[in-house]
Amino acid sequence: MKKILLASTSTIYGGTYLSYLKEELKVFFAGVDEILFIPYARPSGISHDEYTQKAKDFFATIGKKVVGIHTFANPAEAVKQAKAIFTGGGNTFLLVTQLYENGVMEPLREAVNAGTPYMGASAGTNIAGQSMQTTNDMPIIYPPSFKTLGVVPFNINPHYLDPDPKSKHKGETRQTRINEFHVLNDTPVIGLREGSWLVIENGKLTLKGKLTARIFQQGQEPYEWDGKTPLPFFK
Amino acid sequence: MKKILLASTSTIYGGTYLSYLKEELKVFFAGVDEILFIPYARPSGISHDEYTQKAKDFFATIGKKVVGIHTFANPAEAVKQAKAIFTGGGNTFLLVTQLYENGVMEPLREAVNAGTPYMGASAGTNIAGQSMQTTNDMPIIYPPSFKTLGVVPFNINPHYLDPDPKSKHKGETRQTRINEFHVLNDTPVIGLREGSWLVIENGKLTLKGKLTARIFQQGQEPYEWDGKTPLPFFK
Repeated sequence: MKKILLASTSTIYGGTYLSYLKEELKVFFAGVDEILFIPYARPSGISHDEYTQKAKDFFATIGKKVVGIHTFANPAEAVKQAKAIFTGGGNTFLLVTQLYENGVMEPLREAVNAGTPYMGASAGTNIAGQSMQTTNDMPIIYPPSFKTLGVVPFNINPHYLDPDPKSKHKGETRQTRINEFHVLNDTPVIGLREGSWLVIENGKLTLKGKLTARIFQQGQEPYEWDGKTPLPFFK
Repeated sequence: MKKILLASTSTIYGGTYLSYLKEELKVFFAGVDEILFIPYARPSGISHDEYTQKAKDFFATIGKKVVGIHTFANPAEAVKQAKAIFTGGGNTFLLVTQLYENGVMEPLREAVNAGTPYMGASAGTNIAGQSMQTTNDMPIIYPPSFKTLGVVPFNINPHYLDPDPKSKHKGETRQTRINEFHVLNDTPVIGLREGSWLVIENGKLTLKGKLTARIFQQGQEPYEWDGKTPLPFFK
């Protein structure tokens, strides 16, 4: 049975790295003493070591050891052996490219489907979806494919932002961009606002945090989801 | 000699489609009576016909005929025969995919290099650069390559937005995203704010509009460009 936690962001305004999720993560990773960390997305270009240290520092506060996937000679094997996995945020194009180039995409999919607890934040959340095609990131590297883990039957737009009625900027809003995605694709999209996270456990999907999420389906008006009403595309 | 006009956006706040560029375009397209329009980027998913009509309506106000590239059986030949070309904004991933699939990328590069006047707005501006890798758009379709026309020796980030010091949003700023691009790539990037446009004519690069542009080079602090000081990467 899949056990997945997908956070829109790792850090909320005024907080420190993962601090707003601390109580939730104690419960989610209960019984796990070591977490395999995937630092491939390199936010702001920081190194794998620096990024892993950041995750180590946080998880030490809840008594968990963290080990970076880049320290293994065989990363696919590291995924297979992992007791739990956390993929951090950063650039989704880089993350997906590295997952493919290191032969990790398929083993990661299998591990999550087989029940290895998986946590994602931002880009790490995006890749749980059917494709990375609703990322906000810049295409800084050309990945072999936009197909991602597909361990949930939808796509996620992390850091979802509502249109600002006061804005004078004429760039596309997030909603317009997702609508453009739906001109060509039919995968439902969950716009996950900062401070929100999804939990999939015992076959159930739950929305956590204080906010609703925005649901986009091809050919339909987007709507707000309170996290309680069952979603038509999650069974 | 190349003759290129690259606008950050087609529409500025409070204006109508291309209205802020009207006087400039009278001059830029002087002597040209017909413009080939490339509507492939389909903003908000509108059809090629609808989008071409929008361009037709504007250019009629300055006495120019517009014809959509999608109405030709042989789009590459249409590019070769064109007296002037305008590529509209929308989704850059879709635009680039269509340029490749319709065999237009290489003929378009050749035409612009040979001196066919070229105008771009937003996505149409982005593709003039070395690659589309500094687009803001969502990857709604997988293009065969991120390489674009390369008719200018830099990349452009259209709709460039300064970081908002008051924002509580933790998604990456535009500056952070471009810095991530420069961790992996060395092409200089011009952050072109809305209401600004670049003109390349007689071997000279000019910045127009009321604003400065932001220049990003690998391994250097970004800086403001007044459009007068020569850029080290444009010779």
